[in-house]
Amino acid sequence: MKGVILSLYPSAQIVDISHDVERHHIRAGAFLLWMVAPYFPEKTVHCAVVDPGVGTARRALAIVSGGHFFVGPDNGLLIPAAGRLGEPTIYSIENEKYLRTPVSRTFHGRDIFAPVAAHLAQGLPLTELGPPITEYIKLSFGEGLRRGRILEGEIIYIDSFGNVITNIAGKLLHELAPPGTMLVVEVSRKVVSARSAQTYGEAEPNELIVTVGSHGQVEIAAVRESAATRLRARPGEPVRIQRP
Amino acid sequence: MKGVILSLYPSAQIVDISHDVERHHIRAGAFLLWMVAPYFPEKTVHCAVVDPGVGTARRALAIVSGGHFFVGPDNGLLIPAAGRLGEPTIYSIENEKYLRTPVSRTFHGRDIFAPVAAHLAQGLPLTELGPPITEYIKLSFGEGLRRGRILEGEIIYIDSFGNVITNIAGKLLHELAPPGTMLVVEVSRKVVSARSAQTYGEAEPNELIVTVGSHGQVEIAAVRESAATRLRARPGEPVRIQRP
Amino acid sequence: MKGVILSLYPSAQIVDISHDVERHHIRAGAFLLWMVAPYFPEKTVHCAVVDPGVGTARRALAIVSGGHFFVGPDNGLLIPAAGRLGEPTIYSIENEKYLRTPVSRTFHGRDIFAPVAAHLAQGLPLTELGPPITEYIKLSFGEGLRRGRILEGEIIYIDSFGNVITNIAGKLLHELAPPGTMLVVEVSRKVVSARSAQTYGEAEPNELIVTVGSHGQVEIAAVRESAATRLRARPGEPVRIQRP
Repeated sequence: MKGVILSLYPSAQIVDISHDVERHHIRAGAFLLWMVAPYFPEKTVHCAVVDPGVGTARRALAIVSGGHFFVGPDNGLLIPAAGRLGEPTIYSIENEKYLRTPVSRTFHGRDIFAPVAAHLAQGLPLTELGPPITEYIKLSFGEGLRRGRILEGEIIYIDSFGNVITNIAGKLLHELAPPGTMLVVEVSRKVVSARSAQTYGEAEPNELIVTVGSHGQVEIAAVRESAATRLRARPGEPVRIQRP
Repeated sequence: MKGVILSLYPSAQIVDISHDVERHHIRAGAFLLWMVAPYFPEKTVHCAVVDPGVGTARRALAIVSGGHFFVGPDNGLLIPAAGRLGEPTIYSIENEKYLRTPVSRTFHGRDIFAPVAAHLAQGLPLTELGPPITEYIKLSFGEGLRRGRILEGEIIYIDSFGNVITNIAGKLLHELAPPGTMLVVEVSRKVVSARSAQTYGEAEPNELIVTVGSHGQVEIAAVRESAATRLRARPGEPVRIQRP
Repeated sequence: MKGVILSLYPSAQIVDISHDVERHHIRAGAFLLWMVAPYFPEKTVHCAVVDPGVGTARRALAIVSGGHFFVGPDNGLLIPAAGRLGEPTIYSIENEKYLRTPVSRTFHGRDIFAPVAAHLAQGLPLTELGPPITEYIKLSFGEGLRRGRILEGEIIYIDSFGNVITNIAGKLLHELAPPGTMLVVEVSRKVVSARSAQTYGEAEPNELIVTVGSHGQVEIAAVRESAATRLRARPGEPVRIQRP
């Protein structure tokens, strides 16, 4: 993909975000993109490929939102990030002129997404790529909520430290439990004690903490070890945080 | 290596292809380079280091072929890629003027290949580096072949998805078995059924398929799992694909 | 972090050194930085984050030494590299004008170190960031020594090949044992034989060798396998190398 981009646009500034998204895990890729996209400058082209449906009839998308561009498969991957930055306008990539042809059936990253990203980065109008569409695959992380003394949500991502990131907004934790509050956390059918904390450094070795990560979401962390391994937590599982 | 390159050529565009080639596995590195090199623009300097013989008498090579440059050890690593792009002219790197001296005995990537790559990228003539040579270590993936209803070859690479890539050219599969044909695959002394398919998305979960990868070679894949793990397949082992 | 840097300085040349330092292992990160920093050109800004104390009262530092800059947490991480390049002048980062505010409690890489690195790369004077300081967390790898026929030191790093790197200077090995000398190595309570060698290629398969790595330190290596796995060696453990 980088070779294709540089062949079309030799002075492109290419940044790798991650090559460690679990294979075919669209929601994990979508969260990662949602998390990092706002920190890049306007006109960035975010090219993302988690694409179990490559070579089938699924569409290829190019999106503009809040001055950023997104290119990737129509499987939900781009939607949360694009929605976070503004009101997305979505195009179906259909103009073969901007693709590497013949397009392979197994590597659209190289043959569709990389060349389109290179063209967009150089100023190609999105309207050149294909028609705007309004039907596309949606993806949402859901939104955790507060019921009295309980926060409820689900796990949306496990980061490389093993921190367990939820779809519960950080402000709900701030409202429920000031730093230092002991909480009861139920995750993956395990019930454990954890302390509300403002940062990892406040915790004792091996203590579980509930904190608001740098992404703004509630996360469960264990200092110097992986909370996910300890709790056998997996994305998609429910999380319940109670102030006794 | 990047520090050395940027010290000599501060505006170099450096691209990482992979740091995950199995240690000392020259054939795997050679395949990876063969696979990606054609997608980069002319004048690219491909600097590759899989170098179990570092510090011994093995030569260091600089190659020009099809307008691309290659720099690395004389152990076969560069040969398939250089041969794919044109008629290679090969030089032995001997001029100490373009090296970091004293050259260490354990890290020629830093002391020989990186500085030579930086000089070539800036236009240094290859003839400055040392004499052209015609004796060098060859490496070939061999070529799978078809005998009637059977394709025979060997495994040349396992990619990061666990897809098992062979030295059988894709067109041989196209001639033998249209998409949807049931095939008998023999690999690593295991005999399994697999379906000929045009892309991963056509297969059922956990079904094995035989397809032509984006590199143009026949590969054996398992949807959402590693075919290599399932078949305990390793590079170098024979593969036999039969249409019953 | 890269998004933040590029937002402030779109033409920045960003190089990844490693994302594989063991979590929270400050000494391993410090060694890696010490090893690579001298190969980068002057004016390089080395931004390093191994930061178990993020969000606590620990300071954030910006350092100039030998024409290079260093940015990171005040936990010792930057000190050996900065000391290797010259006489460091150290500043406490306190001026919020150059940070992303509000600064999170969990990701100073993004909110403090990345923006400060981008500003320094563009020529911001260090004195703008905060006051120079003389009290900071020190970190030293210690120095192995020779007593007669014995070299004594400790393990400071395990590299990605599993080579066991010590704090014993290479010249001590050169003085004690010319290439080919049989040595007795004691590491992690294991006693093994190993041969003094100039490079990996000289050793027999699976033989242990003692050599001077490209970093200039004595290391214990096993050809085509991991010496660290074989010896169950861990950073911090004592090493003793005897010429019988």
